[in-house]
Amino acid sequence: MLRYVDLTIGSEGWGNVVIGPSLPFGMAKPSPDCSNRHASGWMPLPEPVDGFAQIHLSGTGGGPKYGNVLLQPFSDSMEERKHVQHRRSENIELGRYACTYEESGITTELTVSRRTSLYRFTYPENGVHGLAVDAGFFLSLDEDWAVNERQEFVGSEIQVLSDREVSGYTRIRGGWNDGRAYTVYFHVTADHPFTLARTWKGDTISEDLWQEDSGEQTGALLQFSPEVQTVQVKVGLSWLGCLKARKNALAEIPHWSFDTTREELEDSWRAILSRAELDASTPDSLKRMFYTGLYHAFLLPVDKTGENPVWNDGEPYYEDFYALWDTFRTTTPMMMLLLPERGSEFVRSLLSIYRHDKYLPDGRSGHWNGRTQGGSNADIVIADAWLKGLSGIDWDLALEAVLQDADVPPGGNQESEGRGGLMEYNTLGFLPYGVPRAGSRIVEYSRCDYAIYQLAKGLGRDDLAERFLRQSGNWKNMWRSDYEYEGSRGFIMPRNRDGSWPDRVPGLTPPYTEFPFTPVTYEGWTYSSNWDCFFYEGNSWIYSLCIPHDVPGLIEACGGPEAFRRRLDTFFQHPYFEVSNEPSFFAPCLYHWLGRPDLTGEVVRETILGHFSDRAEGLPGNDDSGATSCWLDFHLMGLYPVAGQDLYILHAPLLPGVTLHLDGGDFRIRTRGQSERNRFVRAVRLNGKDYPYSALRHRDIARGGELVFIMGPEPGPWGKEILPPAQEH
Amino acid sequence: MLRYVDLTIGSEGWGNVVIGPSLPFGMAKPSPDCSNRHASGWMPLPEPVDGFAQIHLSGTGGGPKYGNVLLQPFSDSMEERKHVQHRRSENIELGRYACTYEESGITTELTVSRRTSLYRFTYPENGVHGLAVDAGFFLSLDEDWAVNERQEFVGSEIQVLSDREVSGYTRIRGGWNDGRAYTVYFHVTADHPFTLARTWKGDTISEDLWQEDSGEQTGALLQFSPEVQTVQVKVGLSWLGCLKARKNALAEIPHWSFDTTREELEDSWRAILSRAELDASTPDSLKRMFYTGLYHAFLLPVDKTGENPVWNDGEPYYEDFYALWDTFRTTTPMMMLLLPERGSEFVRSLLSIYRHDKYLPDGRSGHWNGRTQGGSNADIVIADAWLKGLSGIDWDLALEAVLQDADVPPGGNQESEGRGGLMEYNTLGFLPYGVPRAGSRIVEYSRCDYAIYQLAKGLGRDDLAERFLRQSGNWKNMWRSDYEYEGSRGFIMPRNRDGSWPDRVPGLTPPYTEFPFTPVTYEGWTYSSNWDCFFYEGNSWIYSLCIPHDVPGLIEACGGPEAFRRRLDTFFQHPYFEVSNEPSFFAPCLYHWLGRPDLTGEVVRETILGHFSDRAEGLPGNDDSGATSCWLDFHLMGLYPVAGQDLYILHAPLLPGVTLHLDGGDFRIRTRGQSERNRFVRAVRLNGKDYPYSALRHRDIARGGELVFIMGPEPGPWGKEILPPAQEH
Repeated sequence: MLRYVDLTIGSEGWGNVVIGPSLPFGMAKPSPDCSNRHASGWMPLPEPVDGFAQIHLSGTGGGPKYGNVLLQPFSDSMEERKHVQHRRSENIELGRYACTYEESGITTELTVSRRTSLYRFTYPENGVHGLAVDAGFFLSLDEDWAVNERQEFVGSEIQVLSDREVSGYTRIRGGWNDGRAYTVYFHVTADHPFTLARTWKGDTISEDLWQEDSGEQTGALLQFSPEVQTVQVKVGLSWLGCLKARKNALAEIPHWSFDTTREELEDSWRAILSRAELDASTPDSLKRMFYTGLYHAFLLPVDKTGENPVWNDGEPYYEDFYALWDTFRTTTPMMMLLLPERGSEFVRSLLSIYRHDKYLPDGRSGHWNGRTQGGSNADIVIADAWLKGLSGIDWDLALEAVLQDADVPPGGNQESEGRGGLMEYNTLGFLPYGVPRAGSRIVEYSRCDYAIYQLAKGLGRDDLAERFLRQSGNWKNMWRSDYEYEGSRGFIMPRNRDGSWPDRVPGLTPPYTEFPFTPVTYEGWTYSSNWDCFFYEGNSWIYSLCIPHDVPGLIEACGGPEAFRRRLDTFFQHPYFEVSNEPSFFAPCLYHWLGRPDLTGEVVRETILGHFSDRAEGLPGNDDSGATSCWLDFHLMGLYPVAGQDLYILHAPLLPGVTLHLDGGDFRIRTRGQSERNRFVRAVRLNGKDYPYSALRHRDIARGGELVFIMGPEPGPWGKEILPPAQEH
Repeated sequence: MLRYVDLTIGSEGWGNVVIGPSLPFGMAKPSPDCSNRHASGWMPLPEPVDGFAQIHLSGTGGGPKYGNVLLQPFSDSMEERKHVQHRRSENIELGRYACTYEESGITTELTVSRRTSLYRFTYPENGVHGLAVDAGFFLSLDEDWAVNERQEFVGSEIQVLSDREVSGYTRIRGGWNDGRAYTVYFHVTADHPFTLARTWKGDTISEDLWQEDSGEQTGALLQFSPEVQTVQVKVGLSWLGCLKARKNALAEIPHWSFDTTREELEDSWRAILSRAELDASTPDSLKRMFYTGLYHAFLLPVDKTGENPVWNDGEPYYEDFYALWDTFRTTTPMMMLLLPERGSEFVRSLLSIYRHDKYLPDGRSGHWNGRTQGGSNADIVIADAWLKGLSGIDWDLALEAVLQDADVPPGGNQESEGRGGLMEYNTLGFLPYGVPRAGSRIVEYSRCDYAIYQLAKGLGRDDLAERFLRQSGNWKNMWRSDYEYEGSRGFIMPRNRDGSWPDRVPGLTPPYTEFPFTPVTYEGWTYSSNWDCFFYEGNSWIYSLCIPHDVPGLIEACGGPEAFRRRLDTFFQHPYFEVSNEPSFFAPCLYHWLGRPDLTGEVVRETILGHFSDRAEGLPGNDDSGATSCWLDFHLMGLYPVAGQDLYILHAPLLPGVTLHLDGGDFRIRTRGQSERNRFVRAVRLNGKDYPYSALRHRDIARGGELVFIMGPEPGPWGKEILPPAQEH
């Protein structure tokens, strides 16, 4: 199945996926960096390449993070620090990136282990056989809107240790999450000796073999013998220290076989991707989309267990959550379903971060919590873990951690962690206009509180369960029920502290000009004002439907089932639905609560056919740590998780069949009679018996079994109700 | 004058001063560590010595910080990681510590430059000539009350680089300020080769020459030739990286002369101490107290400019503020008076910290803001800098920074930075009972707001000036004016949110038992509850007098001058006055506002004679970065700064005379006719003219001149008023 993983899907357009090799959750993500601008560094030909940095993220938007420790082979001169070149050709494959430079004719191949990059450089006969190691490089972005999200240089050190080894570090702060300084330590080893080695600091190249950190960028220039045509180089990485980087390389790649390293990487991915086995009859393009989606799902977060420079408690340590706001909806449920042990480590990691850094993260990278776009969504991840029976988690600590979100204001600009506007939320029951992102936050806090309700109920804390169930209805305090717009009635709208509903509001940034607020108002004219406005990256049409934890209540607030039906139709036909961004993700499922899973299926089908593909532009929005990819993959299977509830909604799959090899047994999803015409679900059978409901519980899947969709040219009577009555666990 | 500096003053009893050598504001503070417990590491004979760690603080209380990179010579065995020994003898001198061990007979001498320790070990003929380098050691404290303030190990690395060099790092978190992880990098160089070198990790000693960081403690065991009797060892230190530590040692001590290094240290101290030149006729004991006090004043904060691992902006970077709550009263005014350029760097450092870490610090160490005991006292330091005309400071940024304290709640447990309870303070104008430390914080926030008023007024921001002048009166909202106790009327007392005044209040920690609250209630039965109680390390008698910014208002609130006089007499006679801790520091000066500077002088004299001396127990409380030492030194001169105001109160000096060599000229303080009997001020002459006022402004001192106290057996009519009418700057 690895041949169906196409790392280029989502690499152009909005996807921003990283195209260099990586292990699942791997620390090392070497990849070419082009013109120091793009989120994951790479850009397609003919953009020039600065070199290959060792650490990148995948699928992000906003100011970039990382891009540290740049290697660049060159053939021109040992008198230059930088050697930007253009690619003549490029190969992007799972576990191997390769390109040949136009200017120098040098071919670079790279593969990777968990914390070590392995390069193979092939030099033409003529010219210097050179390699630059730049310990000052980092990803930056020139656009005005990204000024506050720029990374900033703090320090670097470099040392030529021997005629084959170089070590040092790069220290950077800032980026999208305005993180405190992080340090990447590296240890470079070559399989042939340098015939010449220089170091540089600032603008000055010298014969000195080491450059201490005096606040300027540093690097090394290395030259190999003209007799040597192929040179291999390992770059060990660590977040702790140079000797750890050295040890990581020794432990992970104790040889010089490029192919062995690549095969080990393939084994790691095969073990994961084989957990979701597509039927052989699946069309190739869907195989490519599905398996690539799974690949993209498990690049992040990064498993930094044993590499934590901030504390030492023996727990797993994952970070590069970019961010839970994105992934709690789809990526993390995919992990909890297919890789529950990883899911358990993920949650234990969140709790370890809470214990030491005082708050659960929503975003976190460079060992620093941030940025919190809306709710404190770790609450939902934790509830999911509880509902899905993940093991090894300290639930008392988990409850303490989510209560920190619910009870203690985070202070400062309230963008790093916790809940902004918490005092207002807890005293008024809503967020008055003026609290940044009040509109998106009210629906998100309500959903997070429903998640806390789930956990509290499960732990027998009836006092807390009652409180948080009540709070989960707080979105109604900002539901302007008599507001009509384009035939729909009732919207989340700005509300003043005194309870009044303003039709016109002042902007939240200078010059604070007043403007009329309507359900289509989208204030994010420039990116930065997504943070100082009423809705984050969306509008009221989108956010007013974001009530997955109380759809019956939502339907009632919208005026009943018929009005809700018209509203949904308007939403998808106008369309206001934006699959390119997470706030819309859940919306298609809403038809299920009207007993119309066929309409969900139609919307999903049209969206996938219209907005996803197996080409480079094949993702419609930032992949956001696989959130978009997993939206796709779940829906391809005919399954969609409602995070924070024990619920997967079902609809017509686009895949002919898939077998999930789970810890509890195999779960086979099959279709019978599926075709372009027979794309509607007439009936469903679960483990051989008729299953009239339109959703499953987690254990129905996790314990194994078989789910058969019987397809036809029209919807059958299936799915009038969502779930059978609950039984005890 | 250096011979009068006695590093042992304050080393026993409560002072907790560090007795190892240090440069002014020096990073390296090597000193013996005894049994891993005490705040600055050292304890007197016969306590055993673990070894000599390179970094310590001076004068702190609570859980200790630092104590990193421990060196210990030994003669027993290369098979043991630890070599605890007892001192047979010890010499503590400015710039040189020395001791001889009983068990091994080894003599250790140590001196220091800014970032490098220099050791000289003299071995007896027999036994191994060994040296242990422990990269895992750190100061810890076993007492129950300090559990939350313990440092915790995070990681370490060590490497034997050559037959004379070892490098590595120690990474620790926690301590009194619950700081995030800090890393101390070191580079050890010996002047003779090792004949044998081993490293260890955890419990295992091996022949490996390097140990990477795998979360366990590491170290090295080194052996010198039996032919070599004296070995010298440099330990370069850095907060950035090992190569920087190496460079620091090379740059600061490019030779092996112990005496040269010590002489350079003496030159540095002489340059500072000579700025306050005591008359030759001063009794030796007073010389020792005064000069040692000045020495203790300038050990902290530490100048880490060029050693900042968190950002890189070209500004000065000082930290190890332990804390501004302590030092703003006396130490920082002493710095601003004698070393205004350092004062300017200090303030620029505060602003740089604000820009990058989002809040001005009150406490800060290990590159982490914390712990905030009461007010946001950087506000007062900044106002002082404005009033005293310090140069090179961005005043707009300064105003922005103090407004952050005044406007933005800090979140979390509100102990790291900013003002806890800020929402209540800004909406109610006081801190209702339940907000931790509401009683001490209300007077401190009021005083900080008066400081912001000063700055705003100076910058022409009349709107802000009006607001903060008004807020500076907020202490009155917690002044229970009809409360009588022991003949005094009106006290800062608990007040409920609804405005009522409870006589009984619940405790703020489990089991929350109710108790009666009176002006003598002191809840800090154990240290940790100093943080969850109404007054921090004090009671209402003390804090009700802490209104230096509005003494006339205080007098009125107390019922007028006669009532105030009786109250002060009670305060000092009972006594409620505690010179051992900062909240009482200002109290003696209050007599000035009754036109009775003679009574101030008497209290000060009795306090100094009764509680200070030139012996080891010569400081009555934690020195707190020289706060106690500077209280002493200012009062010895007959001068006392009222921080946050342009005011130094004057009273009978205890010194016969002192000349302050200031940038603006020499300021000579003289007494005429002083004796035990003639200890009262009859009159004062300033620059040759009669000066009837009891205080000076900063420029009266800073521009140079002469102040003569004419002494007699009774107070003269001098000092009925405090200052002449203000003139324009």
